[in-house]
Amino acid sequence: MTTSRLRLAPLDPDRDAPGLHAAFGDPEVMRWWNHPVCADVAATRERLREGTGRPGAHLWTISLAEGGEPAGMVGLLGGVAVPGLTWLLRRDAWGRGLATEAADAAVGHALHRLGLAHVEAWVEAANDRSLAVARRIGLAERGRLAQRYPHRERPHEMVVLGRAGAGEPTAVLNAEVALPVRDVAAGLTLLEAALGGRTLFTAGDPPYVAGVGFGPWSAGPRLRLVATRRWRIARVTLYLDAGTEFEALHRRAVAAGARVVHPPAEKPWGTREFTLRLPEGHHIVLTAPA
Amino acid sequence: MTTSRLRLAPLDPDRDAPGLHAAFGDPEVMRWWNHPVCADVAATRERLREGTGRPGAHLWTISLAEGGEPAGMVGLLGGVAVPGLTWLLRRDAWGRGLATEAADAAVGHALHRLGLAHVEAWVEAANDRSLAVARRIGLAERGRLAQRYPHRERPHEMVVLGRAGAGEPTAVLNAEVALPVRDVAAGLTLLEAALGGRTLFTAGDPPYVAGVGFGPWSAGPRLRLVATRRWRIARVTLYLDAGTEFEALHRRAVAAGARVVHPPAEKPWGTREFTLRLPEGHHIVLTAPA
Repeated sequence: MTTSRLRLAPLDPDRDAPGLHAAFGDPEVMRWWNHPVCADVAATRERLREGTGRPGAHLWTISLAEGGEPAGMVGLLGGVAVPGLTWLLRRDAWGRGLATEAADAAVGHALHRLGLAHVEAWVEAANDRSLAVARRIGLAERGRLAQRYPHRERPHEMVVLGRAGAGEPTAVLNAEVALPVRDVAAGLTLLEAALGGRTLFTAGDPPYVAGVGFGPWSAGPRLRLVATRRWRIARVTLYLDAGTEFEALHRRAVAAGARVVHPPAEKPWGTREFTLRLPEGHHIVLTAPA
Repeated sequence: MTTSRLRLAPLDPDRDAPGLHAAFGDPEVMRWWNHPVCADVAATRERLREGTGRPGAHLWTISLAEGGEPAGMVGLLGGVAVPGLTWLLRRDAWGRGLATEAADAAVGHALHRLGLAHVEAWVEAANDRSLAVARRIGLAERGRLAQRYPHRERPHEMVVLGRAGAGEPTAVLNAEVALPVRDVAAGLTLLEAALGGRTLFTAGDPPYVAGVGFGPWSAGPRLRLVATRRWRIARVTLYLDAGTEFEALHRRAVAAGARVVHPPAEKPWGTREFTLRLPEGHHIVLTAPA
């Protein structure tokens, strides 16, 4: 594949490891990467072999049309549920829009040559440069999730950006569970104090229904409190992804006097969790990557 | 307020209606607006009075520094839960980045002068030009919701974009309810067939837990199916915002043989809803603006 300034060639780990090590061995380039800096060319080769060996992977080296060592790599990750873009540029190739040009070609290939219905990029929320690249090539934010890389101490927030090929697919915009409660107003007070929940709407005085949102925006995670007089209340379990705010939310919940029935603990499935119990017996499980 | 090319002056409906009517009376400019084209200057004046009269509104006319009739208006909406940006430019002022320049000044005023913690813009998903303006001034997507304007036949999808002042606030990234079911695999099949749910993960064979996502992306609305052997299952009510896909999802659910216990109907609170009942008694309510 060629673009106005670039040549993209299928990546060959044996041939390309020495050139690409200028990127994989540079801590500044690897700052946002999901593994540490590669110590030497052999380690870079091993990582490249692992990447190209995954089912569905399509990786290219990025070279300037006039030739020379590869400036970086771009392509589609293999072994992922949703086709995912990746790109990486040697530091001396930054600042000229080359990542955008290469990633745009990779997206075009994915959607129009490979006929994929959609592609994503996962970009760390603090990585402004890569967010800008993703947006320039037509990927829009679709949601956020938390991850922790094995070589890092703490989780980080990822922005999931995506672009669909022909027309956006059928979409459900939000999911909102109804929690039956004895006292809607008391529920609002508790969720505000313990988890920073914000009242979105109420109906009735005293309220018989209310919306609670998490975070300051008009869209995003939410739930509904609904008054019930039934003697037996159906107990609901709701998982809230606390991302990077896990400890802060735990401190807040404890300070608010909420009933923490399971304190923060690491789970075998790779998360940390703590559980609040509402007076009606509902469990709200706060989760974060372990 | 002044910017490099613009002067922003507090909007006065009586003084500014004749000039701004060039925008409010133009169907092309008003294509994305929440009310129809204003028929005459008096109607524009009435709309401007209504807008400036709302509590918390800060609206300015946009004029070129060299003078002349106002090119448009920009500012903060009043009477909204989260401070909301608005902007509008006469058609002959398009294409020069003036909306971006004016809206950037309004955001700066909101965050730094008024000391607001965050501002939002709601932009229709198909309105590429305004999405670009919002992103250029540092607003990032925070979620999506559906709306229907009174003068339109059908609902549309809104992108909620936001920018925080000093640091992002405590955030819950996602909310995911657990539905106890007798048969996780059967639940996956039903949710896929009826609502286009996608299996995100399963554990166990046969599965005792599974994640279901709605839409093609790695982040977004989701729920969890959890196997239970309890005789009495707690019945959960979950609301899914079907947005513009309400009819399509209803047809899909019916075609899949799902049990639609409440057919599509308009509700007094301004939505249309239909309800699926899962075999265990859970209710999944699909909603859209009426």
